[in-house]
Amino acid sequence: MKSKNIRIHSPLDMHLHLREGEMLNLVAPLSSESFAGAMIMPNLNEPVITEELLDKYRQDVTNALVHPFTPYMTLFFRDDYTYDFLKSIKDKILAIKLYPAGITTNSEYGVGDIDDIMEVLEYMSNLGIVLSVHGESNGFVLDRESNFMPIYEKIASMFPDLKIVMEHITTERALNILEQYDNLYATVTLHHLMITLDDLAGGMLHPHLFCKPIAKRPEDRDALLRAALEANPKLMFGSDSAPHPKSEKESCGCAAGIFTAPIALQALATLFERHHSLNKLQAFVSDNARRIYEIEPEPKIITLKKEKFIVPDRYGEVIPMFAGESLEWSIA
Amino acid sequence: MKSKNIRIHSPLDMHLHLREGEMLNLVAPLSSESFAGAMIMPNLNEPVITEELLDKYRQDVTNALVHPFTPYMTLFFRDDYTYDFLKSIKDKILAIKLYPAGITTNSEYGVGDIDDIMEVLEYMSNLGIVLSVHGESNGFVLDRESNFMPIYEKIASMFPDLKIVMEHITTERALNILEQYDNLYATVTLHHLMITLDDLAGGMLHPHLFCKPIAKRPEDRDALLRAALEANPKLMFGSDSAPHPKSEKESCGCAAGIFTAPIALQALATLFERHHSLNKLQAFVSDNARRIYEIEPEPKIITLKKEKFIVPDRYGEVIPMFAGESLEWSIA
Repeated sequence: MKSKNIRIHSPLDMHLHLREGEMLNLVAPLSSESFAGAMIMPNLNEPVITEELLDKYRQDVTNALVHPFTPYMTLFFRDDYTYDFLKSIKDKILAIKLYPAGITTNSEYGVGDIDDIMEVLEYMSNLGIVLSVHGESNGFVLDRESNFMPIYEKIASMFPDLKIVMEHITTERALNILEQYDNLYATVTLHHLMITLDDLAGGMLHPHLFCKPIAKRPEDRDALLRAALEANPKLMFGSDSAPHPKSEKESCGCAAGIFTAPIALQALATLFERHHSLNKLQAFVSDNARRIYEIEPEPKIITLKKEKFIVPDRYGEVIPMFAGESLEWSIA
Repeated sequence: MKSKNIRIHSPLDMHLHLREGEMLNLVAPLSSESFAGAMIMPNLNEPVITEELLDKYRQDVTNALVHPFTPYMTLFFRDDYTYDFLKSIKDKILAIKLYPAGITTNSEYGVGDIDDIMEVLEYMSNLGIVLSVHGESNGFVLDRESNFMPIYEKIASMFPDLKIVMEHITTERALNILEQYDNLYATVTLHHLMITLDDLAGGMLHPHLFCKPIAKRPEDRDALLRAALEANPKLMFGSDSAPHPKSEKESCGCAAGIFTAPIALQALATLFERHHSLNKLQAFVSDNARRIYEIEPEPKIITLKKEKFIVPDRYGEVIPMFAGESLEWSIA
């Protein structure tokens, strides 16, 4: 009997960390095996804040690729961007990524006071540039996303023409806010559809499941999963795949981030099939993003077949999610 | 100028893991440097459930000691203990420790269905044996202690003459229940007076601060600290000091437990002084336990002096809390 196949048209990863140097050369080819393109995060050691840095990073990414793949580039938000600068660079970027200061990897250079950003948001709204946001406060780790919701609401109300993407949402509350504003959209990761704080710390402590925002309660995970399985039209897949060397994960101060890029599509197919929602996978991993961002990637078909995929123990020095475990679907 | 001294009369650690073999020989002497005695947990690889195992463990502990120190022994709860057995062993133990099945280290042999334990609780109540409880359900990691509160309430109501100790409480809710039943008492650890989930996972992930029950919210920590600082008469110090080799803490599946025994008294003095409550330390680390358990340890005075104590990076293969950091008080 022939094994079952499904064909995904131009799958997109709308939140991806490719890093730089050796790590970039390791992980970019892996993303290009599974996806037609991805939105590339700008939080490098030297954040992407000028046209020169942007051009250089796009070139570095392109050089690292093996398969056809569109890197949708982003700028790192700064409150001193001028209208003329944004106008000149707008065709080179898909979004500008806002990091409230000090929240996640390399976001020390982010924005502290939300009132300082209003002028740049006005420019972006006028120019039609999407605002992508790591929406967390500096509060208690479980409350950070919820604490940030009033800021999303404030920005969404003040700039009704600005498209705002709430990145890697983790709570039921974020889903509720998402529904209340026409100009709010969101990405959700594979891991936040699957794990809760129990998986990180309910039994032994599992550093490879440590991520920011931290995985939350079962009710939150269940709500996110329901929204993904119905391919909620305002929700896009964004892996937030974040590679760190094994030595930085299994140590005294473990870095946040889960590496999922090369296993995400196989795991999503497994998850969606288990919940009888395979027919929604195309919208969740591609169509919603194309409509929201108004993009049309080069056509690329990824065929998934119903055949066991044993996740490698490691890719180079990076341990992936589900290392050594078996998924139901593989890439043909 | 002479440095300030305080004298603690017979400090007691009412919840201590000494383990076995080499680990016992490493950690028992350290506890005996700081404390006059401790209640020793019975969750060994082969749990302490017979008189023979009890006698052997007491002997092993005694052999490992260097300084005068009273090991208050405990039995591991079983629902098939007979009245005659309990009567015969009661003078050799301070309490019987109940582990709901599958919750913490070596508790696979604990009790699953709470209705099965009623007969033994009746015997204990009649014989005046204290019930010590690891009160967590099998639910979501943050809810486990709260989920267990109805069980405390049920047992406390059904057996008003049974003294029940809620071990290592971590929530404001547990403190509220504590106040509602005359026969409920509690221990609290050093670490739950100091850390929240933020310290484990709010920045980098810190495996050496991973413990069960997991550290909770700031409101919980603050409520516990207030109760300790006023030496709430129903609350006793119990370190839950739990040594694991470094290799088991910094790995893919990190074991739960924080090693505090050799630094607890110094850290408590630092904490109580910072909150202008040094005058309550004696009650919190000794008097409350003596009154609740009706024990009178051999007199032993530990003198603390106001002099920097640099916590060692490790004791053998075990990393202590505050490794390499500086505390304000040391043992003279």
